Amino acid sequence: MMRTEGRAKRLPRAVRERQIMDAAVDVFSRLGFHAASMDEISEVAGISKPMLYAYLGSKEELFATCIRREATRMMEAIATGVEPDQEPDVQLWSGLRAFFGFVGENRTSWMVLHRQASTQGGPFAVELTDMRSRAVSLVAALLTQSTKAPATKLEAESLAAALVGAGESLAEWWLDHPEEPAGVVAARLMNLVWMGFGDLVDGNVWHPPSRR
Amino acid sequence: MMRTEGRAKRLPRAVRERQIMDAAVDVFSRLGFHAASMDEISEVAGISKPMLYAYLGSKEELFATCIRREATRMMEAIATGVEPDQEPDVQLWSGLRAFFGFVGENRTSWMVLHRQASTQGGPFAVELTDMRSRAVSLVAALLTQSTKAPATKLEAESLAAALVGAGESLAEWWLDHPEEPAGVVAARLMNLVWMGFGDLVDGNVWHPPSRR
Repeated sequence: MMRTEGRAKRLPRAVRERQIMDAAVDVFSRLGFHAASMDEISEVAGISKPMLYAYLGSKEELFATCIRREATRMMEAIATGVEPDQEPDVQLWSGLRAFFGFVGENRTSWMVLHRQASTQGGPFAVELTDMRSRAVSLVAALLTQSTKAPATKLEAESLAAALVGAGESLAEWWLDHPEEPAGVVAARLMNLVWMGFGDLVDGNVWHPPSRR
Repeated sequence: MMRTEGRAKRLPRAVRERQIMDAAVDVFSRLGFHAASMDEISEVAGISKPMLYAYLGSKEELFATCIRREATRMMEAIATGVEPDQEPDVQLWSGLRAFFGFVGENRTSWMVLHRQASTQGGPFAVELTDMRSRAVSLVAALLTQSTKAPATKLEAESLAAALVGAGESLAEWWLDHPEEPAGVVAARLMNLVWMGFGDLVDGNVWHPPSRR
């Protein structure tokens, strides 16, 4: 490790902010919102406490910013993961894979995003509600684009709300059962929402194209 | 309205507590947890404030008790609504009808149970998480009982988590779209989880036995 003089000042603001947020997500997820201190975050980020406040504001503001960033990253992962030229089932499958893949690779940030925010209440719960609305809009747009069926806006939105809730709840369950591989959990939701219980009861399961 | 002397003292404790909780759910849902006062609750319940504290404790305790009671009522409605001798699809349909029927007839208590609790955070969020776990266990038991398929405990539980999350999220969406009838919303989730998108894309929908 070479020691470089004055390195803190040479980084562009965006890079510096990213480092701070990485540190904050790490500290919040390890200690929880209340026990996390700006002292520890500044130490992990390798930045002075006044600079920390200057860049990202109070602990409350920093936490809200973390929620927004992690949620945005997750939605980008889904939007990028879905291949719009594929058949509807493959689109849905790639979206679910992207979602559970993201949650699995980012357990830490999902903890911050979801568990901490949903138990803190107040402004963080509002932040989470906003993000859920954005997720519902994203999924409704994907559903409308992929099915080309003449679904009404209300239909698409309500199915999207159900799907987002199912994914959110299953991901939450998965945090308590980390022994299950991401693909298994994703396939379970795929089978539920693509095949439906009707087929599952009859033993019909969905297979990705590579296994047909 | 006849005025009866000393009526407050003659009621059995259970009846009195029910009246207080009805009043509390009404006040909490109209004003929100923070703005709701024990003064207003005691006035609506027709009981003195010291008696209110004696019966159900502090405002926090009263709110937590309301959450528990409303959640228990809802799960009783579902457990009672499901007809265990019917075919699996009819069982699922009757469970969904019972759930959305309950939410529709109890918008007030659902608001208290769900929206307020999820935005208050802290002990109320814990209460809500506990209730969600109980709902997942109930639905997993119903699924296992109805399908008789050799599903593992993990499979049943994770499908139940997905289904509970879907129902919860769709009910939350429905609060913002009260113009949609309960049966339409329930049928949408039924079609999603019984038929699956695979059938919906092809235009195949599920019909209750009476319309086949």
